[in-house]
Amino acid sequence: MLARVSTAPTFKRLPRAVREQQMLDAAVKVFSRRGFHAASMDEIAEDAGISKPMVYAYLGTKEELFIAALHREGTRMMEAIAAVVGDNLPPDEQLWRGLRAFFGFVGAHRDGWAVLYRQARAEQRFAGELAEMRSRIIEVVAGMLGRAVEARSAHVDRREVREIDLEVMAYALVGASESLADWLADHPQADPEKTATRMMNVAWLGAAQLLAGDTWHPTDP
Amino acid sequence: MLARVSTAPTFKRLPRAVREQQMLDAAVKVFSRRGFHAASMDEIAEDAGISKPMVYAYLGTKEELFIAALHREGTRMMEAIAAVVGDNLPPDEQLWRGLRAFFGFVGAHRDGWAVLYRQARAEQRFAGELAEMRSRIIEVVAGMLGRAVEARSAHVDRREVREIDLEVMAYALVGASESLADWLADHPQADPEKTATRMMNVAWLGAAQLLAGDTWHPTDP
Repeated sequence: MLARVSTAPTFKRLPRAVREQQMLDAAVKVFSRRGFHAASMDEIAEDAGISKPMVYAYLGTKEELFIAALHREGTRMMEAIAAVVGDNLPPDEQLWRGLRAFFGFVGAHRDGWAVLYRQARAEQRFAGELAEMRSRIIEVVAGMLGRAVEARSAHVDRREVREIDLEVMAYALVGASESLADWLADHPQADPEKTATRMMNVAWLGAAQLLAGDTWHPTDP
Repeated sequence: MLARVSTAPTFKRLPRAVREQQMLDAAVKVFSRRGFHAASMDEIAEDAGISKPMVYAYLGTKEELFIAALHREGTRMMEAIAAVVGDNLPPDEQLWRGLRAFFGFVGAHRDGWAVLYRQARAEQRFAGELAEMRSRIIEVVAGMLGRAVEARSAHVDRREVREIDLEVMAYALVGASESLADWLADHPQADPEKTATRMMNVAWLGAAQLLAGDTWHPTDP
């Protein structure tokens, strides 16, 4: 271990925010490679090119670092979705874009999903953080569905779609997407875009039309 | 503790299978009440009216007992579903009956679901058992969907519905149902039958029809 000192990188002066992102990049990489339990703060510090005391000083214990990493990845995912889902688009286009961004994100970060998300789910101590992220996503989806209903009710005969219906629909959509994301993470050969299309078919058309061989297609080429 | 000996129930001679079911009943009750970590083998043995060494002899460690309890509840749930889903019924009726049985089961065992299933999900050591149960359910659902396609293709113009489409659809349906079961477990006032209808609407009709105010209704009264 002592030998390492001489080869340690010189720590450049960088703004705190940049340093933190470097640490989180390193944390995501190491947690994904080793899993929460086997990951060491030494490896994370080394990968970030930052001293271990500095990692502790900036982001706290390994547990706090994991939560920070999970939180950042979750935020990135939601930002990737929010960036493409425009409020003014028709609801099927919004759902399609949201699903494509979601599965695209998972497909591009298969290791991160498999380890970060599954570890978070499989550790009681991270249950709170994960439940909170999930609630936020469900709220966003329910809101999107609500606006879709509003928009439609302007020109179709409005039958009652209650708030609880939207909430339940959002739970179902998010649960289905999580389940398929797990499937995608386990199938390195599977195409994220195609997975999004399949999910879109189930969510938008429903099993009835799908079993009859009908499918939904995006309007863009 | 010594005082208990005199009030301990006399252990009647019962067939092994009956004893095991008593132990599992007690295990489900105690795990649901206390959670895996806080549950004690003493309490389980006492609740089952069986000596602690006998519980160990029959079903092993607390971890093995938890897996046995999880396995039995999972099997009961699948049996409850299989009992009502007839192969000769139309696919929407099969799906509806399956969902009603599933949410009925969860609704009747809210505590058990909340603790047994969530604990199993939140403990790395039970991940294997849970993943296996999940795979079995997904296989059953994919099989049901496959038969529905076969039946339909006899009298509609058959468009290609591939095995992977059925697998993906099954993943989505199971994930959506799990997510809604969690919702149901957290909402003691929510009606399981109504939850099944809502899930049926999403799964069978899809969001498009649902957002327009269309709903699916069972044919039975």
